[in-house]
Amino acid sequence: MPKVMIFSPEVDEYRWRIESAHLPELELTTEPTVCDIALGEPKPIRDALPLLPRLKWVQSVYAGVEPLVDPTQRRDYILTNARTVFGAYMSEYVFGYILFHEKKILERIHAQQAKQWQPSESGILPGKTIGLLGVGSIGAHLASTAKHFRMTVRGYTRESETSTDVDKYYHGKDLLAFAEGLDYLVSVLPRTRDTNQIVNANVLSVLQPHAIFVNVGRGNAVDESALVESLQTGRLAAAVLDVFDQEPLPENHPFWTTPN
Amino acid sequence: MPKVMIFSPEVDEYRWRIESAHLPELELTTEPTVCDIALGEPKPIRDALPLLPRLKWVQSVYAGVEPLVDPTQRRDYILTNARTVFGAYMSEYVFGYILFHEKKILERIHAQQAKQWQPSESGILPGKTIGLLGVGSIGAHLASTAKHFRMTVRGYTRESETSTDVDKYYHGKDLLAFAEGLDYLVSVLPRTRDTNQIVNANVLSVLQPHAIFVNVGRGNAVDESALVESLQTGRLAAAVLDVFDQEPLPENHPFWTTPN
Repeated sequence: MPKVMIFSPEVDEYRWRIESAHLPELELTTEPTVCDIALGEPKPIRDALPLLPRLKWVQSVYAGVEPLVDPTQRRDYILTNARTVFGAYMSEYVFGYILFHEKKILERIHAQQAKQWQPSESGILPGKTIGLLGVGSIGAHLASTAKHFRMTVRGYTRESETSTDVDKYYHGKDLLAFAEGLDYLVSVLPRTRDTNQIVNANVLSVLQPHAIFVNVGRGNAVDESALVESLQTGRLAAAVLDVFDQEPLPENHPFWTTPN
Repeated sequence: MPKVMIFSPEVDEYRWRIESAHLPELELTTEPTVCDIALGEPKPIRDALPLLPRLKWVQSVYAGVEPLVDPTQRRDYILTNARTVFGAYMSEYVFGYILFHEKKILERIHAQQAKQWQPSESGILPGKTIGLLGVGSIGAHLASTAKHFRMTVRGYTRESETSTDVDKYYHGKDLLAFAEGLDYLVSVLPRTRDTNQIVNANVLSVLQPHAIFVNVGRGNAVDESALVESLQTGRLAAAVLDVFDQEPLPENHPFWTTPN
């Protein structure tokens, strides 16, 4: 019977899910030397590679498996990643923050605490424009959610124009035209050489001043100094960052203390 | 040329929108005696009725026009309300709060302020069940958004079963079966005699303890004392209330100081 070992800080969650699935042909193990299947995050799996003599299959819980395709690492196993499952998850995250902002939820909580009865002045999504940096399976799901909420959708991709929920595609040198006047800029870009600091001061400067930048891709896509400056000078309303160039975020990084 | 007068605290917003629409056959006025069309909220329009001798048409910006259908009031004008436009708006509001809760956005903001790097442990919507009290045009839109996020949808209606986004309908005496085990209960009920305190202690007691109650209908649908008790004793995780039995909410109402 194949033995699966979990590599993730959320090991309890994954163990519970596997046990709940009642898979009689799978056995959970915590002993590296008998592990046939590694399930989890690419980084801890890479670190454990020398300890897994029987490894046949790695199932990453992420789409991004960069640590494992590093050419200095062994590759004598099947490597599979998690793709389509993340679209729905990322849509919840991104639109959770977009609606949090538009509906002024934090202001409403503070108004309650101050016993202040105020008429709502929420923003609405129809008429707003969202720009997706990267339109793979995650970007396409974000586009479908944006369309559900009747937003205008721009997509910036290398070449592909696969999602029909994108109103207009941009490529290559059209980056500034893509970013011009956006209400929301969302990066779902993977970490590659081409994506390094693609969100730079120029891109940030052409967004609406009330715009929000959301990064659910990889931290390398952002010029973090330029982003901090845009936030501190109010040229950008807010940033929602799920990823950083360096993780965990260094203790003295200005992101910690930038309120927006 | 017909003259339209605006009755709303957001008069500037409506004036701006009408002017932006460039309607050459419509003139805005602030003089009641020449007003042909009243646009705005039912309550201030009702109060102004005796001052509007030329009134031919009232366009309410809400679906609920109770103040105007009061039998003691004149009804010698055409009365139209705003229906389908609210579905999208209410979906943004309701799912803004649902995702705010699932994604633990407030906890993340506090974690940033405390410079605390914590792995995310967000909830997700697929697998969660939402119950809609009332499935008219607003409820149907909420159902479509719930389906976009792959939730299970229950609907409680008087008779109609029009939305195909509802997985199961309940009627009449099946109220407790409808509410049993819900993760989210959302009321979009109008104010009628039949809806008085329909969300009572019994209904609240059969929801999941982690459930959230959202009221975007009318305040009379809720037994407010029972709701406060459920919130204070933790039998309910939170309530999101856009409406109250008495508005503005009285200064000493326990809702002000109930943190959840």
